[in-house]
Amino acid sequence: MDEVTGLELRSTVDEGGTLTLSLEPVTLSPPQGDELIVRVEAAPINPSDLGLLLGPADVATLEKGGSPDRPELRFQVPRERIGGVRARLGQSLPIGNEGAGTVIAAGPEAQALLGRTVGMMGGAMYAQYRKLRARDVVPLPDGAKAADGAAMFVNPLTALSFVETARQEGHHAIVHTAAASNLGQMLQKICLADGVPLVNVVRSEAQAALLRDIGATHVLDSRAEDFRRRLADAIAETGATIAFDAIGGGTLGSDVVQAMEQAANRRATEYSRYGSNVFKQLYIYGALDTAPTTLNRLAFGFQWSVSGFLLTPWLQKAGRETVARMRQRVVNELTTTFASRYTRTIGLAEALDPEVLRAYERKATGEKYLIDPTR
Amino acid sequence: MDEVTGLELRSTVDEGGTLTLSLEPVTLSPPQGDELIVRVEAAPINPSDLGLLLGPADVATLEKGGSPDRPELRFQVPRERIGGVRARLGQSLPIGNEGAGTVIAAGPEAQALLGRTVGMMGGAMYAQYRKLRARDVVPLPDGAKAADGAAMFVNPLTALSFVETARQEGHHAIVHTAAASNLGQMLQKICLADGVPLVNVVRSEAQAALLRDIGATHVLDSRAEDFRRRLADAIAETGATIAFDAIGGGTLGSDVVQAMEQAANRRATEYSRYGSNVFKQLYIYGALDTAPTTLNRLAFGFQWSVSGFLLTPWLQKAGRETVARMRQRVVNELTTTFASRYTRTIGLAEALDPEVLRAYERKATGEKYLIDPTR
Repeated sequence: MDEVTGLELRSTVDEGGTLTLSLEPVTLSPPQGDELIVRVEAAPINPSDLGLLLGPADVATLEKGGSPDRPELRFQVPRERIGGVRARLGQSLPIGNEGAGTVIAAGPEAQALLGRTVGMMGGAMYAQYRKLRARDVVPLPDGAKAADGAAMFVNPLTALSFVETARQEGHHAIVHTAAASNLGQMLQKICLADGVPLVNVVRSEAQAALLRDIGATHVLDSRAEDFRRRLADAIAETGATIAFDAIGGGTLGSDVVQAMEQAANRRATEYSRYGSNVFKQLYIYGALDTAPTTLNRLAFGFQWSVSGFLLTPWLQKAGRETVARMRQRVVNELTTTFASRYTRTIGLAEALDPEVLRAYERKATGEKYLIDPTR
Repeated sequence: MDEVTGLELRSTVDEGGTLTLSLEPVTLSPPQGDELIVRVEAAPINPSDLGLLLGPADVATLEKGGSPDRPELRFQVPRERIGGVRARLGQSLPIGNEGAGTVIAAGPEAQALLGRTVGMMGGAMYAQYRKLRARDVVPLPDGAKAADGAAMFVNPLTALSFVETARQEGHHAIVHTAAASNLGQMLQKICLADGVPLVNVVRSEAQAALLRDIGATHVLDSRAEDFRRRLADAIAETGATIAFDAIGGGTLGSDVVQAMEQAANRRATEYSRYGSNVFKQLYIYGALDTAPTTLNRLAFGFQWSVSGFLLTPWLQKAGRETVARMRQRVVNELTTTFASRYTRTIGLAEALDPEVLRAYERKATGEKYLIDPTR
């Protein structure tokens, strides 16, 4: 097979603070060894992709450029935020953590995959073609479409990694915030299947109803007046001592740790001014609220930890065997536990349409966009 | 030997929110097995003792009662802080984490210690006599006075535990805040002896000079205008990735983690929007500032952890062998590395003198009080 040329979505911040989104032609040489070339047919827009796509740019400054086939969008990065992205200045960065498509060329060691529909992880998925190694793809089960496997890595593996982490670190029940998300629904299904009690924290009755519909028993609305008391009750009932927080900013994470300490002290028989001896772990894995994190740590005792959580280094530490087991579970339950619903499918050029961008950039719960570069 | 009766300092909060300090007579039965009775001759007032002594009481509400021999002080606990001490309501709590004195009686298995001057840990040291087991005391070297061994546990073992923790968790250099404290000076001496680079953060030039006098090379004044830049420089130079923070409240701990991330990114060759892959650990072990902890986590990347740190559970986890090695080092270096200087020695009744209490309650750096119950 000859080389293949296709368009790839790129994001660049220049020294002057202008962030440009564009489609660049990229030529891939024929695959060698265990390499593959995949025609990308589906790639989801995850919140984590938006961070690289738009960086710290001010979306309100959007300006249109380029041509209909090769559109270009420009944004300004506020001066005070430039420091945070100094390391990417001048680099033309490809976007898209995961996707799925059809193998159209394969090196001699990967011929078995030719023609198969595969899920992929590894960045640069917002492109017409992607070259990668056979071990970085997972063949989808018969009958599954590219859209079914487009989001089989980030959310499914993150949800599974939460339950794995809880087990590895000796916790018996979990608290999850922003729990009605695509990821949160997967987590609830996993916890039900595995018998791990889960306390879901949401921000509306509609979100609570959505989780109850899939079998959740502990769902708390953080906007309810008696939220903190009910949180401590649910934690006392389940014994949750680990939490995963997608919000990050403000006091919600702190409230969860404090409720864990209150629940522990309800069982205490003796006073200790250093608090309970129950270890409480909060992992922050998202930034739906970009404000600083406020910890009312005097209410925690001293047995607590608040940590960042990121999937890729977690997978590296977990080791091949654990990751292989997790991937296999995702394949087995691709259209049940790990099904993603998309509210809209767009083409590669459409991703640079101002109206479309403003819509997917809002990150509304329940809305999820899929890019199909073959459109 | 017959039973012994002596006075013991007690702190009690009643249901109405009144905190009472008093001296109560306590009778100790003759020691059995490996038990000892020690006449307490020296017990330091550590910040951690004040937490139990005064709890959340408002010192401005002090009222005097009792008699000259058996003084009593009463304080009011503000209504909004009562919830935090509900578990101690109505309990008459003894105070004083550590002390030293002379063994005046010993059970049959501990006769060798009779007449020895020993250091002790285990609470209730603000008393004329203390009964405890032989394994909870350490005989002082010949010639050492009770005052030399009075503070041989809390600060020395905490300082040593910092260096042990750094080693165990794979860090090569340490950041310490409120670094001119008694504990901070010990830590600097240990780090110099062990070749562990230490970045000291202080709040005045006088404190900086104090640390430089004992050999510190990295001393930063957090009130200097270019503090954050110099902090990142010192961290880049030393490679510090673990910090111990006595302040707790506000943004100083966050500034330290952020400086670690900045230092890591100076060495980075490739942009990652998830931040560096250098793991950064902040331990909060004190509460000189009782305000909430504010974390500007978006500047940390995702490889970080902020945790409470408390000596007693740390020692339990560390195991007998490690603790024995640490204790032996304290004995060996009792009057050098681990020497404590006291600005004033007071009697047990004097600790309940309003003027004296207001003075030691201020926790000024460089001021340290010793209680001698034989006065």
